[in-house]
Parts: sequence; structure tokens; C-alpha cells
Amino acid sequence: MRDFEILRTAHVEYRVTDLDRARAFYVETLGFVETASDERRMYLRGYEDRFHHSLVLTKSPSPGVSHVAFRVRSDDEVRAAATFMEGQGLTVRWMDDGEERGQGLAFRVQDPFGFPVEFFAGMEEVEWYLQRFDLHRGANILRIDHVNFFTPEVQRAYDWYTGELGFQCSEYTVTDDDPPRLWGSWLRRKATSHDLAISMGTGPQIHHASFVVDGREHILRIADVLAAKGYYTNIERGPGRHGTTNAFFLYLRDPDGNRIELFTGDYLIADPDWRPVQWKISDPMRQTFWGAAAPRRWFNEAMAVESVLTGELLPVTAPETMVLPPHIADD
Amino acid sequence: MRDFEILRTAHVEYRVTDLDRARAFYVETLGFVETASDERRMYLRGYEDRFHHSLVLTKSPSPGVSHVAFRVRSDDEVRAAATFMEGQGLTVRWMDDGEERGQGLAFRVQDPFGFPVEFFAGMEEVEWYLQRFDLHRGANILRIDHVNFFTPEVQRAYDWYTGELGFQCSEYTVTDDDPPRLWGSWLRRKATSHDLAISMGTGPQIHHASFVVDGREHILRIADVLAAKGYYTNIERGPGRHGTTNAFFLYLRDPDGNRIELFTGDYLIADPDWRPVQWKISDPMRQTFWGAAAPRRWFNEAMAVESVLTGELLPVTAPETMVLPPHIADD
Amino acid sequence: MRDFEILRTAHVEYRVTDLDRARAFYVETLGFVETASDERRMYLRGYEDRFHHSLVLTKSPSPGVSHVAFRVRSDDEVRAAATFMEGQGLTVRWMDDGEERGQGLAFRVQDPFGFPVEFFAGMEEVEWYLQRFDLHRGANILRIDHVNFFTPEVQRAYDWYTGELGFQCSEYTVTDDDPPRLWGSWLRRKATSHDLAISMGTGPQIHHASFVVDGREHILRIADVLAAKGYYTNIERGPGRHGTTNAFFLYLRDPDGNRIELFTGDYLIADPDWRPVQWKISDPMRQTFWGAAAPRRWFNEAMAVESVLTGELLPVTAPETMVLPPHIADD
Amino acid sequence: MRDFEILRTAHVEYRVTDLDRARAFYVETLGFVETASDERRMYLRGYEDRFHHSLVLTKSPSPGVSHVAFRVRSDDEVRAAATFMEGQGLTVRWMDDGEERGQGLAFRVQDPFGFPVEFFAGMEEVEWYLQRFDLHRGANILRIDHVNFFTPEVQRAYDWYTGELGFQCSEYTVTDDDPPRLWGSWLRRKATSHDLAISMGTGPQIHHASFVVDGREHILRIADVLAAKGYYTNIERGPGRHGTTNAFFLYLRDPDGNRIELFTGDYLIADPDWRPVQWKISDPMRQTFWGAAAPRRWFNEAMAVESVLTGELLPVTAPETMVLPPHIADD
Repeated sequence: MRDFEILRTAHVEYRVTDLDRARAFYVETLGFVETASDERRMYLRGYEDRFHHSLVLTKSPSPGVSHVAFRVRSDDEVRAAATFMEGQGLTVRWMDDGEERGQGLAFRVQDPFGFPVEFFAGMEEVEWYLQRFDLHRGANILRIDHVNFFTPEVQRAYDWYTGELGFQCSEYTVTDDDPPRLWGSWLRRKATSHDLAISMGTGPQIHHASFVVDGREHILRIADVLAAKGYYTNIERGPGRHGTTNAFFLYLRDPDGNRIELFTGDYLIADPDWRPVQWKISDPMRQTFWGAAAPRRWFNEAMAVESVLTGELLPVTAPETMVLPPHIADD
Repeated sequence: MRDFEILRTAHVEYRVTDLDRARAFYVETLGFVETASDERRMYLRGYEDRFHHSLVLTKSPSPGVSHVAFRVRSDDEVRAAATFMEGQGLTVRWMDDGEERGQGLAFRVQDPFGFPVEFFAGMEEVEWYLQRFDLHRGANILRIDHVNFFTPEVQRAYDWYTGELGFQCSEYTVTDDDPPRLWGSWLRRKATSHDLAISMGTGPQIHHASFVVDGREHILRIADVLAAKGYYTNIERGPGRHGTTNAFFLYLRDPDGNRIELFTGDYLIADPDWRPVQWKISDPMRQTFWGAAAPRRWFNEAMAVESVLTGELLPVTAPETMVLPPHIADD
Repeated sequence: MRDFEILRTAHVEYRVTDLDRARAFYVETLGFVETASDERRMYLRGYEDRFHHSLVLTKSPSPGVSHVAFRVRSDDEVRAAATFMEGQGLTVRWMDDGEERGQGLAFRVQDPFGFPVEFFAGMEEVEWYLQRFDLHRGANILRIDHVNFFTPEVQRAYDWYTGELGFQCSEYTVTDDDPPRLWGSWLRRKATSHDLAISMGTGPQIHHASFVVDGREHILRIADVLAAKGYYTNIERGPGRHGTTNAFFLYLRDPDGNRIELFTGDYLIADPDWRPVQWKISDPMRQTFWGAAAPRRWFNEAMAVESVLTGELLPVTAPETMVLPPHIADD
Repeated sequence: MRDFEILRTAHVEYRVTDLDRARAFYVETLGFVETASDERRMYLRGYEDRFHHSLVLTKSPSPGVSHVAFRVRSDDEVRAAATFMEGQGLTVRWMDDGEERGQGLAFRVQDPFGFPVEFFAGMEEVEWYLQRFDLHRGANILRIDHVNFFTPEVQRAYDWYTGELGFQCSEYTVTDDDPPRLWGSWLRRKATSHDLAISMGTGPQIHHASFVVDGREHILRIADVLAAKGYYTNIERGPGRHGTTNAFFLYLRDPDGNRIELFTGDYLIADPDWRPVQWKISDPMRQTFWGAAAPRRWFNEAMAVESVLTGELLPVTAPETMVLPPHIADD
């Protein structure tokens, strides 16, 4: 048994080129709560969040993802995780005190596939907005749910996250090859369908971070609001239902082109003996249980990730043979 | 003042090649109420309908639309409408008693643009299902709302339906030409956004008949049900919101390829001095206020219409210069 | 045939003792659009309204209702209506130009039962907010729907409004007496279930004015918002479904105690030969198709109405024998 | 660390006097899936359940609750739990093989407060209906959520379930006494607001078992359906929102008077350092964040529980001083 346990995907840091423009989108339109801000960063959260932030926006010369954070139970577990990472031959960067506001002891590391991940335990508790209905707006965003990695090394990343970090598999997709190869996996630590999806794509890139909203009607409502506010072209895909995870979704591109998913209606997994659901890549109902074909850019474009050491965006590699699902539209 | 007044678009008759297959789709899946049936026809209605039928399905060698019916106030007005049509040089065919079950005095005529329209007043009253929630199923279809004509003669059809038949214009779309030309119009008799849309296309064809459902959640729900029942490819477009009329929509193709729209959320027009809303064909938010691009076949395919005299499907003519809106997808 | 035709119930004027407190409730919480205001009055509208106002709040020494306005087609019809009222022996008060902002030629009269009603045709057109989703808030109020009169003279008021003013009956309630007596009626001019309900009660009083909201979810949402804002005790009854009209409802008391209903989900009446729905007062599903018992004050309390001549509130008279429906709660 | 861990409240067994009448209510109306049945019992589940049953209905001479089941990870943990109970001086009854269909090794015990609880790990896996939307009906019940115990020994029961069985406290209610006393607690094992509520009342009795439905609209819909089917008086309380847990609720009485709650919209607790939410019994928004007063019988009536040894219903004891919250209605 490992001596640290990831509780959940806890926050993500996006790079934006214009903080005011980002605030207009994330805070004034989508309705994220702005916990704190300075000239460099905005710290945002949802209405169900009890901690300081679940989304950080950082002024940067280009879009992309700075890091993804996993929460563990205690500072001791943070240290144990760092020791584990060093044992894997990875270089740990400890965060300076106050470098990420509201957060306690933390380190970042580039995982073996290039993804910038952070481990932390302590975070400042803030006002819970769940019943502050008077302040709810926009998409009624409740909390962060998961991130989706794009990597050409799907099987290896699956093995590492399940074998070494204790993620459990809720659903997975295989190719039509004989024997089938792993195309994607939906992995969880918290008791829902997933905290981390890993799927075949040019990587290391992050396809999206996903935030839970309070019911399907808020997905429809925010589409109306976005369009009325001039964000017509920021609505990239949906609303629709995924076959995988059963979620009702809407994919947005922020003004910098970063992608987020609004998400509702997956399921609870309270039993550790959950038997993973298998899908075939050729099943058209897998990605889109019903609804319009996904636009091709949804598969071709994703967010570059930072080096945790230099802050530079990392180069990416395409899969040797890219496999795409059916039901894709060109417009 | 004309001596007949159309109250509303009251029913439509679709041609289907297999009544059992049509029943599985319309009754068992979408939830239409089956008022009556025989070997040749099924008479269906919605939960808000108080009369015998708003949709007739007729076994035929090919799909298409047999007729669209407008209700007037009385048999006297039916006769006055017939006299009017004959005065227009059109050939009226009086319906035999019992030829369309539940219906009183009626005639059919090919309008000047080739559309098979019927005028009637009397229809058998049946049980109102509005509060028979125990019997509600599928898409919770309430009532017929409108039909959409495709014709190359948009302006002439507009002039005839508004000038001669008393339709009022709620919204219209113009081309980007200078001067602009009429591309489409949304015309009403009842107090909602429309009973009849007339838009540019190869015609005479009927693009769709539209039925009102009880709220957006029933559109999402029926998409789930359709997919789970194997009707994945019958979902053609949506769910989404139209700019014109503000309606939340889902377009379906029945097993024969006939198209119906499920529709909710337009508006009430209680004031006769309503000033029509103008849209430009180049405004991407006109057809799709937000959401996925419409598939090209949505513009290219429509339903042929019958001759009211011979029952044969009529030949069609394309517009000299077809104008299409932006935001169309190929897949 | 009368020479004026009422189109619909078009607006209502409430008396409030504190305009700022009323604004906090109606505008900042419920989300009415404030078209114009001065020291004496606020002019509000819903998102589907295309005219200047559907609710006027007027600073007054006590709560109550100043007037209810019916719209007719033209100034000529306004004059015809005035002539008709004078023929009934009623005293007409013509409104001064600009007395009610945005409105054209208008007069007020006390109907034979004491209700202060106004007739007008012209009103300034303003921006349509239907698709200004970026500005939608609170309860997403679309438009005024109807008012409900309390009078001991139910049958006489029914006769006058249907016989003299052309209202049509959509539904009605009778007592269990033999023969049954009329207890209430739901009367329409526009094509929905009603513009005017007349029911047995101490009168002349107005029980509520009702505003349409965009779907049941907005009724649930505004209840959350009201509670979170400290308006817990302003939620008087609901949410629930009425048997009569099928509407999903929520009754609120404003900070002065005036009552409004939020309302959604009745039906369209496009056919003039609608056969009225009959209910018995003893049917518990009539007032509450399901849900909690109505509180007793919902039956016992209503809004006094003004004299159109003096601005004083009128004295009221109780029915000789008050008949109440079942399913009433005391708390 | 104890050597067994409860995963969640997994099922409940209700006593019903007429299985056909119960099937009409639970299966044909509420939409529970009937996994299996015999002359004595019906085994039901929700659409998100992957195991054989979450509700058992057993033909019995009177209503009440036979047992509540907690799932642990393995048969070894079942045995460890039995050893623990015996160490507490409690009498364990091992279930015969096949006595409860679909279930593996299991025992029942009367907890120190009289509640009949079962421990098991293995249960037959059955078809997952989550995406069988074609079969969804009624209230779209997803899964069991929690049970609510009534006991005069609130503090002692809280201490035992948290201290001995590892439940964690999500929310709690205190009296207005000085010092305040514990009035109720919402305790969890799975990652939602609760698996077990313990509140002050005459006990041992079970106030209700609660089942999660897929969104607020399904609560409104099932109320319509229940009323239309003649179950008007079976709707006891709601729909409304609880302050505690934030859930949107509807309380029903089955044809025998057993109570169930339909429930949606609490929250996820992925962090073990959750700080419990405190409520005061005198806060009217605690039990009803908004909405109608709860009827008095909701507090006065609950379900008797069986002896796991004799099958007889146990006698009950009232609290010495019953404390009731405000906002209760008599009708």
C-alpha cells in the first residue's frame, strides 16, 4: 500500500493572455466566484467548493495549462508523494510559500508523460456558496470534476496512474484492432466517474478541464447567455450527452482558446468493486450518445502544458497512428 | 374583409410505407396518442389536443406529405373558402364523408405554389389528455404548431398567404442583396410565432411539420430515449435554439425519412400590431442562436407533396439561385 | 357585435409604501426590467413584453391595487369603450396626457362590482429582451398573464364580463349545492387559459396579478433566490400545480403584502369553440392538483382596490355564505 | 482502525400487506426496476444500481421496516463486523443461504438502539439501466441514498455510529438549550451528504428511506403522475428544498403508509476533512429552506422496525421532552 492517497483532482491552472478579458468570460459570464486576485493571477472557485480555488488563471504570453493539482490527505502525504516521485527519477519542484495563494505545502513534478502535476494537502477554507442562491449566476458552476490528458502513450499512462498512483478505472475505450488496444480511459479517485481521462492524442497536451454544473438546464441557459453576450464562437461542441460516463456536456473555448467542459449527470461509484464499462472506438454512441457530430477541431486541438521547472510550454508528439472515432463534422 | 378566417394549422398527413414501423416511432417512442386506426391510416394527437387528430399517417408507396389542414370557424366558412379558391382558378376537391375520420365538411386544393392544403371546421372532440399525466410518455407532445414550406417562390407565396389568406408576419429573413430579397417568413394565424413558415428551397416541398412539447427537458429526454431505442440516426439536428422564433428545437427523421420538429419556447402574440422581427441570412445566430452547425442535408432534403387530385407526388423546382445561411456542417 | 374588442389584460398598478424596498424585491430579486421611474412610480416589464410596462408600482400610503388595464385595438375603440361604460351608468375618468408614462389615450372606470379598470390602446414600444439572455435574472419573468378578482357577486360579474365585454370562459368551478352555483370562472380574451379570474371572496378585492415565467425550473430557482435573500416569509404558497388551468405556480407577497403569482404551463386556446372545463369546489385536486395544502390566509387575504376618482381604497363586502375548498392548512 | 469498513447504506426492506398493490405503486408508478419476485418478496432497484436490489418489499401482516443493510468490502469484513457486534454484547443472526435473494454472506443484528441492521458484501450483479432510457419511467429513480432513524437517544446513537462504525458527520442540528443538545445528525460513509440521518423522535422507528432521482424535473413529474393515478393523498410533503443537505425533496407514503423520500441535489464530499455544517432547530430554513410548512404527521408518524430474531415489530419510546422545529401545519 502506498503511503499517500490522492483524494481527487483539486484544481487546474490555465494560462491566459489578458486577465480582464478572462474575468469577463469566467467570472462575469460563467459565474465562477473570484476568491482572490492580483496582477498576475485570479483564483476562482465554484459554489460547492469550500476551499480557496479550483481554477487559477495566470497572465502568460500564450494560452495553455500551467499545472493540474491532486489533493492528498496531509502534508506528510505530500512529502511521501515527493519521495515517491524522486524514486521514479522525476525532478520535484517545491513551491515557495505563498507562490500559490491559499495553498499549503506543495510540489510540482512533470509526470513520466510530460504532464505538470502538483501535490498538496492544505488549502484555506472559504465561504461555501452552495446555498448563496442570491449570488448564483451564469452556468451555476459547482466544482471541478476532472481533466483530460492527450498522450500518444495511452497504455503506459494508464498503467502508471492506476498502478503507481492508485487511480481506478471506471470506463475505457478500445480500438477495433485484433487484439484491441487501449484508446482511452476514465480514471477516478473520488467517488464519481472520473478525476482523470487519458485518451489518444498529440501530447503531452490537456484536452480540457471539466466543471460540474447544477443540472442540464444550466447548460442550456449558459449557452443562451454566451450567445447573447457575443461568445457565439466560443461554444465549440454540445450540448449533448456522452456515451462514456453518461454526462450531459457543453465544451467551450475561452477567449484565449483554452477549452473547458461544463458537465453534469454522470454517476456515483460508492463500491470499490466497480467493473469498468468497455466501449469500442467504432461505436458512434460512445462519444455522442445522441446529437450533432463533434467538430474536427475538437479532436485536433488541445492545450499545451508547461514545464514545472522553466514555465516554457513543452513540445508535443503525435501518436504513430492516430485513431479517430466516427461522427466528426467539418464546417 | 374576407368571409372566412383561418384559425390555425390544425393537422398534417404524412405518407409512410409501413404503418407498424411508423407506430413504433410515433406512438410507442414519441408518445403520440393514437385516437383511431385502420388498415390504411393512423390518426394521432397530442396531449393538449381536444380534437380527433393533428397528425395522420397514411400507408403509401413512398414517403411525403399528403396534405396540410387549416381550420376555419364553421362549415359556412369552409364553403366560402372553396368559393374563394375557385375564384383564384384553383380546382377544389371536396372530401367524401368519412374519408378523413373524425372530420366534418372539408375540401382540398393545390395552392398556387403546389402545396396540398385542406380547409375544414368540424372535428370530433375526444378526451383531453393534458392532465392524464399517467399516460404521458416519450416527448410529451402537446399539439401541432406549424409547417414549413420550401418553395422557390418565397415572395409570391408570402404575398398570397398574407394578402389573400390573412396570415400575419411575425418574423422574416432577407438576403444580403441590395436591395434585399425575402428569403423566409414566419406567418401566423393563431397567437404564437407561426402556423406557417415559408422559406427558400426546392419546391413545392414541405421541410417539416412541428409539434410543441412541454419544455426543454422533454427534448433532452426524448433524445435519450430515441438513442436508447436504436433511433440514433433519426436525430438529425439539435437540440439547439433557433434565433428566429426563439424556439428550442430537435429535428427528427421518421423511419421513412419524413422530417418532424419538436419545438418549445417561442412566444405569445396577443397584439395584432406586432412589428415583425427582421433577420439577415448572413447572421449566423439566425438559424442557430447557439449550438452545432446544421448538417447540409437539413437544407437539401425535404418532403415531396401529393397532388390532391391524383395522389401522385408532384415534381419540384429548385430556386434559380439557392441562398444558404452560414454554419453548415458536412459529415 | 360591440365596437371595441379587448385584446388582453395588459398591465396592473400596485400601491407600495416604499419604492426602494419594492425595487429590491421586484427588480433586483424577481428580475423585472425597469423601463422608467420617477419619484412617484416605477414602470416595469417582463422579457417578452415589447411595450413600456406591464406592472406599475406607485408610492402610496398603503398597499393595494390602483388599476387593472385592458388593451383594445385603437384609440377609436378606447372612445367606444368609454361610450359603452357611460351607457352603463358608470363614471369615466379620462387620463391626463403623461399621467401614466408611455401610454396613449386612456380612461379608467369603476366596473359595476367596484374594480378599477382602464382601457387604452397605444403604448410606447421598447427593447425586446426575449433574447437578451445576458440580462435575464431572477424568475425570468416573461409577461403579465392575468388578474384574479374577489367578489361576492361571482355570477353577476361573470355575466357582465362575458356578456358585455366579450370574455370567453375557459374553466369554471361550481359549488356542491343543488342546483350548483357558480363559485369561480377563468375568462380569456387572449389565446391562453385566462386574462381574468373571478372567484368568490370578500370584494371588491384583487387576489393577485399573475406573471408568466419561462418554465418550471425558474419557479424553483426563484424560490431558492428569495430564501437566500431573506424573503423566506414572502413565499406564501407553492410551488405546486393547479388543477384549474394546469398551471405550475408560486404565490409571493411583496414587502407591502401585495400578492403576485408566478405562473407557467397553462395551454393555448386557438379555437373559439372551446368547451369550458367544469370543476367542483369539493374536488381537492381543483386548486392543488398535488402538493401542500394552501394556507388559510391565501383565501382570507387579498388586495383592496382604489377608487379611480378619489384614489381612496374602497370598502369591501363579504359573501353572504363563504364557500371554501378543501385542503387548507393552519400554521 | 477497525477491521471492517462500511461502504454505504445499500438497501432497505419494507413490510407491505399487499404485494400487488405495492407493485402498482413502486414499480408501475414510481418506476423501480423489478429484478426478481416471489410470493413473499419483491426485489427492486434503481437505474444506477448495478446490483440485485436496493429495496425489498416483503408481504407482512403490517407495515414497517424489516431491516436496513450496510455493505462492507468483503466476506471477511462481514465476519469481522459480526465479531465486533458480538463484542458489543449484541446477538447476531446469520442469514440462511438464499434467504435474501441475490445476496451473499450476511448477518443481521439489532443495534444498541433497536434498529435492525444487516451487514453483507456480495450481491449478484445485474443489468445496468443507466442508459436504458427506453425503460426509464415514473420518477427516474437512480439509487438508494440514505435512511433516517428516529430515536430518543440521539447523542448516544451519534456516538456509536461515528465512534464505533466510522460514520462521518456532514451536518448536525442542535437545540436552543444552553448548552445546546444534539437534535439530529447527517452521517455519511459514501461521498455524499449522508447514508444515515439520526434525529430526535419516538423510536426505534425509521422515518424514511430516501432514493435519488435524476433531477428536480423528475420530482415535479412524478407528483403529476401520482396525482393523475389517484395517489393524491400519498404525496405527504413537498416538493421543496431542505436547508440541511440542500436536497430537493418529495415525501410519499406508500399504500401501506410506509414513507419514502425522493431526493436530488445534495453535494459530493471528496475530502475527509469536511467540517460539519451546524444548524439550529429554531432556524425555520433548516428543514424547509423555502416552501410550505411540513404537516404535523411528518413529525409524528414513522415506521416501526422488526426484531431481527422474531420478526415482531418492536415497541417504541418517546423522547422525554420532544423538541419540534418551527413551521409545521395542521390540516
